[in-house]
Amino acid sequence: MTALTVVGGGIIGLSIAWRCVRRGLRVTVYDDGGDNGAWFAAAGMLAPAGETSFGQEALTGLLTESARRWPGFAAELGDDIGYDRSGALDVALTSDDLAEARRMWAYSERPEPLTASELREREPALSPRVRGGAFRPGDHQVDPRRTVAALRAALGDAVVAKRVSTIPDGPTVIAAGTGTAALTGLPVRPVKGLVLRLRGEPGLLRHVINGYVDGRHVYVVPRADGEVVVGATQEERADTTVAAGAVLELLRSATDLVPELAELELTETVVRHRPGTPDNAPLLGHWKDDVIVAAGHHRNGVLLAPVTADLIADLVRTGRPDPLLAAFTPGRFT
Amino acid sequence: MTALTVVGGGIIGLSIAWRCVRRGLRVTVYDDGGDNGAWFAAAGMLAPAGETSFGQEALTGLLTESARRWPGFAAELGDDIGYDRSGALDVALTSDDLAEARRMWAYSERPEPLTASELREREPALSPRVRGGAFRPGDHQVDPRRTVAALRAALGDAVVAKRVSTIPDGPTVIAAGTGTAALTGLPVRPVKGLVLRLRGEPGLLRHVINGYVDGRHVYVVPRADGEVVVGATQEERADTTVAAGAVLELLRSATDLVPELAELELTETVVRHRPGTPDNAPLLGHWKDDVIVAAGHHRNGVLLAPVTADLIADLVRTGRPDPLLAAFTPGRFT
Repeated sequence: MTALTVVGGGIIGLSIAWRCVRRGLRVTVYDDGGDNGAWFAAAGMLAPAGETSFGQEALTGLLTESARRWPGFAAELGDDIGYDRSGALDVALTSDDLAEARRMWAYSERPEPLTASELREREPALSPRVRGGAFRPGDHQVDPRRTVAALRAALGDAVVAKRVSTIPDGPTVIAAGTGTAALTGLPVRPVKGLVLRLRGEPGLLRHVINGYVDGRHVYVVPRADGEVVVGATQEERADTTVAAGAVLELLRSATDLVPELAELELTETVVRHRPGTPDNAPLLGHWKDDVIVAAGHHRNGVLLAPVTADLIADLVRTGRPDPLLAAFTPGRFT
Repeated sequence: MTALTVVGGGIIGLSIAWRCVRRGLRVTVYDDGGDNGAWFAAAGMLAPAGETSFGQEALTGLLTESARRWPGFAAELGDDIGYDRSGALDVALTSDDLAEARRMWAYSERPEPLTASELREREPALSPRVRGGAFRPGDHQVDPRRTVAALRAALGDAVVAKRVSTIPDGPTVIAAGTGTAALTGLPVRPVKGLVLRLRGEPGLLRHVINGYVDGRHVYVVPRADGEVVVGATQEERADTTVAAGAVLELLRSATDLVPELAELELTETVVRHRPGTPDNAPLLGHWKDDVIVAAGHHRNGVLLAPVTADLIADLVRTGRPDPLLAAFTPGRFT
């Protein structure tokens, strides 16, 4: 059997490699071994309806399918990746924010609406100012850093610390995130995001919070160990500057929703770049000859890891693309 | 001639040691060599009237005398410590803030009042919202980190990396900041302060800004190299947590005054502890036997370094305290 090379050891490349190893393939992953990937910033919200825009039906289908596969993926990977099913709350601060949230609900599978007092019953730390929201029991979370660590551990020596500047010979999967553009010429661009990490005593919050705050969107993701992830900005920029104003906006929005967050320690300000594409849906499938591409997952890399891994592993093995991949061919923009 | 030991290599201990060496004494400074001192956070505003409260006449006299000595101290120490005479602007955001600023002006040597448009003429980056302020041509600034580096370089091998837990034998100056309490039992307490450092292109601001912003006080200190120091919180706490809410308040106040600061990079969030005393004036003079104390400078360590160094060096040499020291005897609380 031929060996497979995976270029890129972010959450997508590692997940594909892991699935391929499970199916008996010999795999080598090339990665620089660092934390430059978008996964290092990602909060790990698994929200299939929350992250898509109007008119992206194929992507919504893929997100939903991957969310369905996450419990099994997490169970196979082990207990230590922070997979949590407590669900998410949409929380709107002002009546304008509530109107915007309702506009989003009309598009997605309608979540269970909650009054302000019902919200605070579920989440007592919410500001008394919040106007309303909804419960999304199906929105789970996972810790992307622990997921990558578990994948690295599961793959062991198959992950080789190496920077790759040309596509290797033989069957290859390019899963290099924003680096995919330089390797292939495909249109993957960096979309800058700033994410904060706070730390306090566990128990302040129970749910992932999707906040609508004075016209801005912020998420607040509490981990069981007391870490709270606050994100994220989104800018069409390639620089890595932690802008003072971006930190201010995230902290202001988060503390407007949950005032007690002000007491927590600010432990990290992390900038990473999401790999965006012209339609912000991923590039998944054969690109040329022996080369498959799995990149451009934009805001959805963590959520899409299980379905991407399964479908690409099948494609590697059988050579036949699953119908779910039809909308995501790497060559669709040329 | 007997050798002198100085315990503590912050800006006070180093300045005393340097002055003593200049006067021909043999000096050893014991310090852990790190950056735990309050100087590492300090912005380096040399504002003799801006930092005292009502009723601290003796301290105001000492601050004024030290400000007078700073130009000579800086000239002797070299060009590289960022001593800058551009002056400071008091800037009030709201009419309530302007009333508070005026209350402060009535106490100090009255600065030159400026209208909002006069302020923005001097400092075009100020928010159009500012209501008024004043110019303080005599308020200078220095870079405390570069000052400490210059003092360390000037002292060379006289600075010995050593943590001291008991008072050494022989003539000794205790200049250990908040560590003075453990060495002597004198009432020096830690007063927590958070200071931010931003970085951008040089030239956004010309003056030190003392801001009065919605009832809060914030300072914004621009350096020639594009660094901008924003401070400071003040809390009676000994912990080193960078609280999210404190970062938020400083960023909000600073960008309310100077909106373009939002574009700068947030490069540091630093917590250090000012050494406070029951009256928040320093402890300066003989404590017992061969031991002199020079500690507890609270918010004024950088400003008070030259006069402290001169007066303590004189005291070491002559054994007779200068009359300026009379109000600051270390034993005044017992």
